[in-house]
Amino acid sequence: MAVYTEVSDEALEAFLAEYAIGDLIAFRGIAEGVENSNFSLRTTGGDYILTLYEKRVDPADLPWFLGLMRHLAARRVSCPQPVAGRDGESLRALCGRKAAITTFLPGVWPRRVQAAHCERLGTSLAALHRAGADFAPIRANGLGPAAWPGLLARISPAADQLHPGMLAETALAVRACLDGWPDALPRGQIHADLFPDNVFFLGGEISGLIDFYFACTDFLAYDLAVCLNAWCFETDMSLNVTKSRALLRAYDRARPLDPGEWAALPLLCQGAALRFLLTRLFDWQNTPPGALVTPKNPLAYLHRLRFHRAATTASAYGV
Amino acid sequence: MAVYTEVSDEALEAFLAEYAIGDLIAFRGIAEGVENSNFSLRTTGGDYILTLYEKRVDPADLPWFLGLMRHLAARRVSCPQPVAGRDGESLRALCGRKAAITTFLPGVWPRRVQAAHCERLGTSLAALHRAGADFAPIRANGLGPAAWPGLLARISPAADQLHPGMLAETALAVRACLDGWPDALPRGQIHADLFPDNVFFLGGEISGLIDFYFACTDFLAYDLAVCLNAWCFETDMSLNVTKSRALLRAYDRARPLDPGEWAALPLLCQGAALRFLLTRLFDWQNTPPGALVTPKNPLAYLHRLRFHRAATTASAYGV
Repeated sequence: MAVYTEVSDEALEAFLAEYAIGDLIAFRGIAEGVENSNFSLRTTGGDYILTLYEKRVDPADLPWFLGLMRHLAARRVSCPQPVAGRDGESLRALCGRKAAITTFLPGVWPRRVQAAHCERLGTSLAALHRAGADFAPIRANGLGPAAWPGLLARISPAADQLHPGMLAETALAVRACLDGWPDALPRGQIHADLFPDNVFFLGGEISGLIDFYFACTDFLAYDLAVCLNAWCFETDMSLNVTKSRALLRAYDRARPLDPGEWAALPLLCQGAALRFLLTRLFDWQNTPPGALVTPKNPLAYLHRLRFHRAATTASAYGV
Repeated sequence: MAVYTEVSDEALEAFLAEYAIGDLIAFRGIAEGVENSNFSLRTTGGDYILTLYEKRVDPADLPWFLGLMRHLAARRVSCPQPVAGRDGESLRALCGRKAAITTFLPGVWPRRVQAAHCERLGTSLAALHRAGADFAPIRANGLGPAAWPGLLARISPAADQLHPGMLAETALAVRACLDGWPDALPRGQIHADLFPDNVFFLGGEISGLIDFYFACTDFLAYDLAVCLNAWCFETDMSLNVTKSRALLRAYDRARPLDPGEWAALPLLCQGAALRFLLTRLFDWQNTPPGALVTPKNPLAYLHRLRFHRAATTASAYGV
């Protein structure tokens, strides 16, 4: 679940008084999400989401995130819109945390991904990348290749209890990935965490993208690799080629990948698998019993990593 | 949080097709609650709550719960209304569980309880009891006195690690409570779990009562004792007499307590404290690490129990 901070009635009332969005009607915690505290908020003015940014988000990054969301929405990417207070400021403080109200997006995230979802995702991801092209501010990817050795060093040898030899295998993959990592692919603003629960659908079409708090400036095709990992593998850990083909073709139709991007795809997919393997391993070892959020099993990403290491060209993904 | 069961898109769509409430617009998990899976559901027809009943709820009891909610709402107690499907049935199946759609209630539960909240609560609780008077079906209190010895027997000696001597003290209290438990107080339909997160307020007034899945037929004043425990103690475990006085006086104004009820109040409060102490102790020992719900610390209820055992008359509560 994602309510780490309880907002008292008085604090909420005082906070809402700073906005011109009407009177409070309802306020409920939202179960989805793991990083921040999210509440659905209804006022006489409409429906909103209230987010309290928790410890993993650097407050210094928040203006960049909100700026990107505002920029994208102005270019018709359906994403939450920061709502400004009476003073014009949309980034405020509540219960000792940075907080923002954003618009409510209709839609339902797909619990069971179909190839048709992947196709829509490819089109939307390309649209996101195109819309972000003229957003100039840069935010480095804090969980990109440069961060992997540090993440690896913080994982205890106990990881091998989860799967024998796992740590050595991961270390090897980090080295191989860093050695071969490209440096000249098209860059831009990427979402970097576009899992199914961050994509809303309505009537078969994408109605909105949410949770931009890992967004950063990096290779555009890396974002595609994140999606391929998150959307195209089955629960038995095998790749569903129909889904990856649908994702890649739809993306390529809307923003054609250049030959360098196609060639780098298996390595970018390895990198994306590593990023989630490393953070999940860390969370697995560092989530105290009784914590609010259940850590996700890292093994799914070890299996994905192996698949991508065996892939030599994009044909492994059905194209 | 309270989403134990994920509902797939296809299952949700098929389920909604059984209702005449319009097309799906949004579907989000609700963080609050611990027993069942709850989702806020928006359709073109309005706002609803979808509840999937999880393992602690006996499916055989569900018609009673839904019937009581329907009965109360018809008597102007604001509580969720079961929504019937096209076939007239409001209790259905979804993802292998019993499930129901109920109406959405506006309001916000008080994160920080004030005496004014307790006063409103007293009035509403009395109204709930009066409205339930002509609901004939009976449901025994599965967590009443008869259940306490069994609950106690399931708590391991390790409880004393939480607080030395705790188990013996609890056993003593169970015996004392059973020995003195009254048998001739006014009975009726009680909520039995009316904690602050089950009571919504709007503009200082109660806008709705939710979560009737512990409701049962028992002493009306026992319900008041549950509320006194849940609403009138401060985080330092001391009783706030202003709050208990406000609660009791407001209740008594709307449904006058008889002398037997006043006299039994300290014992009923002991019983209510014991009920939550026992179930919290059990949950504390039986919640696996990494579970979705963080067990609540039982100690708060040991301190309440001590307070009530020292109380000899209702004057301990400020009246």
